[in-house]
Amino acid sequence: MKIVVAPDSFKGSLSAQGVCKAVKEGIKAVFPDAEVIELPLADGGEGIMENMVYATGGKTVNTRAFDPLLRKIESAYGILGDGETAVIEMAQASGLPLLKEKERNPLVASSFGTGELIRAALDAGYRKFIIGIGGSATNDAGAGMLRALGMKFFDEAGNELEEGGAALARLARFDDSGLDSRIGESTFLVASDVRNRLCGPRGASAIFGPQKGATPEMVDELDAALGHFADIVSAQKGVDLRTFEGGGAAGGMGASLIAFLDAELQSGIDLVMERIGFAEKIKGADLIITGEGRLDVQTFNGKLITGITKAAGKAAVPVVALAGSQNLSGAQVAEIGLVAAFSIVSGPCTVEEAMAQAEPLIREKTGAVMGLLKLSMQSSDAYGNR
Amino acid sequence: MKIVVAPDSFKGSLSAQGVCKAVKEGIKAVFPDAEVIELPLADGGEGIMENMVYATGGKTVNTRAFDPLLRKIESAYGILGDGETAVIEMAQASGLPLLKEKERNPLVASSFGTGELIRAALDAGYRKFIIGIGGSATNDAGAGMLRALGMKFFDEAGNELEEGGAALARLARFDDSGLDSRIGESTFLVASDVRNRLCGPRGASAIFGPQKGATPEMVDELDAALGHFADIVSAQKGVDLRTFEGGGAAGGMGASLIAFLDAELQSGIDLVMERIGFAEKIKGADLIITGEGRLDVQTFNGKLITGITKAAGKAAVPVVALAGSQNLSGAQVAEIGLVAAFSIVSGPCTVEEAMAQAEPLIREKTGAVMGLLKLSMQSSDAYGNR
Repeated sequence: MKIVVAPDSFKGSLSAQGVCKAVKEGIKAVFPDAEVIELPLADGGEGIMENMVYATGGKTVNTRAFDPLLRKIESAYGILGDGETAVIEMAQASGLPLLKEKERNPLVASSFGTGELIRAALDAGYRKFIIGIGGSATNDAGAGMLRALGMKFFDEAGNELEEGGAALARLARFDDSGLDSRIGESTFLVASDVRNRLCGPRGASAIFGPQKGATPEMVDELDAALGHFADIVSAQKGVDLRTFEGGGAAGGMGASLIAFLDAELQSGIDLVMERIGFAEKIKGADLIITGEGRLDVQTFNGKLITGITKAAGKAAVPVVALAGSQNLSGAQVAEIGLVAAFSIVSGPCTVEEAMAQAEPLIREKTGAVMGLLKLSMQSSDAYGNR
Repeated sequence: MKIVVAPDSFKGSLSAQGVCKAVKEGIKAVFPDAEVIELPLADGGEGIMENMVYATGGKTVNTRAFDPLLRKIESAYGILGDGETAVIEMAQASGLPLLKEKERNPLVASSFGTGELIRAALDAGYRKFIIGIGGSATNDAGAGMLRALGMKFFDEAGNELEEGGAALARLARFDDSGLDSRIGESTFLVASDVRNRLCGPRGASAIFGPQKGATPEMVDELDAALGHFADIVSAQKGVDLRTFEGGGAAGGMGASLIAFLDAELQSGIDLVMERIGFAEKIKGADLIITGEGRLDVQTFNGKLITGITKAAGKAAVPVVALAGSQNLSGAQVAEIGLVAAFSIVSGPCTVEEAMAQAEPLIREKTGAVMGLLKLSMQSSDAYGNR
């Protein structure tokens, strides 16, 4: 039997790789000889680098980079199994989890570290890039990243601007003549499901600013600053950052990636599944087990599980889902394209208990699901041959 | 496909019949043509009458009887599908749920109503009896029942004793000459898993008195009263009630049933399964779905699910269990003889929420389990033919 394990992370509880491990143990407890293929997934945010490296048999390259508050930290980028594609995960250098709650400040947080990761990969010879921009702590329109790659930003007095989104309000002109020339030789594919534009009431600052620590006043300040940045770019470069769909992703990082790195944005899970060869790897599988923290009506809008069931449908491989909380009716489960969906919990409990016990709960629940499949193997007359 | 649904009640939440209904709906949602056989079970306590009547296609006979505090209430006994066996459920007339919390008083609570139910069935011509004695509110050694069937209990002054266990302390002699003569023509089979004897620190009063409202002082008083009752019976009848295993069941009801009605005690679930023809009804079934409120290490000692897996094992029918709370490991599930066990809950929740939602949760979880079985039907190469 061949089973593909392709879960999202259980957010706040267990990484996608951790889920894979627990599911694999649950399978092996019942079917010791089953071939289990682990494809931990991510839709573009945290975990995309580690998961893609794992799924393709690539490697991780450790390097140092600035965190959002410009402290040097241990960071990393990934190389896919093809040996030529670098995966940059913005959260590895400019991510919200790198900051303590009270350190969050999108006025000053900088994406500089992400630019350093790109530069390190360029230095190592890579020219194909996949960039995951979820989970950022920044709202600087990617100015920090651009600076790390050689651009300069000046105020009226000709002094270089400090880091962070707020400073962009004082931008008078920029100089991109120093932008790393190797960027022109490279391709950048950005994993992002955000369609918001740079500015306005549905823009980067208004929608994503608050979760990065922005007060309503800071949102207004940042929205104006990013708008001013767009005005200057429009004047100097003739490109209107405000018009880009997805330009508002990662605090405006999306807009700069498009405008200055000629990046292409793609739905995160589509990009990941394509690049790890998902369709190829599920061929001939008897079952896919996926999972995520919560299944509910939002899952219909979500990209990960629907992406899997779409691919699985083409390959005629059934999909079973595990979730911390499974709030879909049987009809909804079927509509999404799942054979069945189970909560991992073993009875009434708190969310905290379920999160703390996610690993053993996933292992045991997988075992129960496998028990049912084994049953049907043993009674093929009843279940197999009608 | 033929599926037998044989659950216990989910105590405090859903009757065994209610569980059957929900499971059946879950099955039918996936397999509209499946043959579903509903065998709601009980191990001797509340529900035994209703469940056995339902499982055998019998009927219920309504009648009036005294409740534990001698108030006339609507009650009932059952007739099995064989048309000749009456099922008396003690809880229907002398049960704890008939009393408000503050009304509980084992000093005065009487089993008289249960005697009335027996008498009503005798009047209707029945001579084969199954008696379920779980869930009683009484601690009167069955004296009330015996009185309803014609016995008399006197104090030193020759006055008849009042009802209840405490009064037995003043018993001077009894007169069983008026005991209904039809009892001699009848057989009494008692469903009970209690092995406690009538008196002492593991006796009826000490172990079961507190849940009926007895304070420590009342336990001492009742234990002494039942001991005195045993002394009088020993003196007049030459039978020592204290020696009967199970004599302490239902506040000493067990002892009087054995001594005066020549009753035989049998493990509740064994009796129920035997009388509803469980072994016969599961023949050729593809699956049994059972369930109860809670699965944990106590389940190993419990009689219901182990009784089912034992019978199912002989018939080579796999068993899947649903539970409000499923606290067994995969190894323990296998050891009990289950193929798999699932909690019905859909995620973190309180016990109260799970209980309130038991019906839809059972229906949905059954649907998910059926989804997995259907999957294996659709991919028989993968699961059916190896």
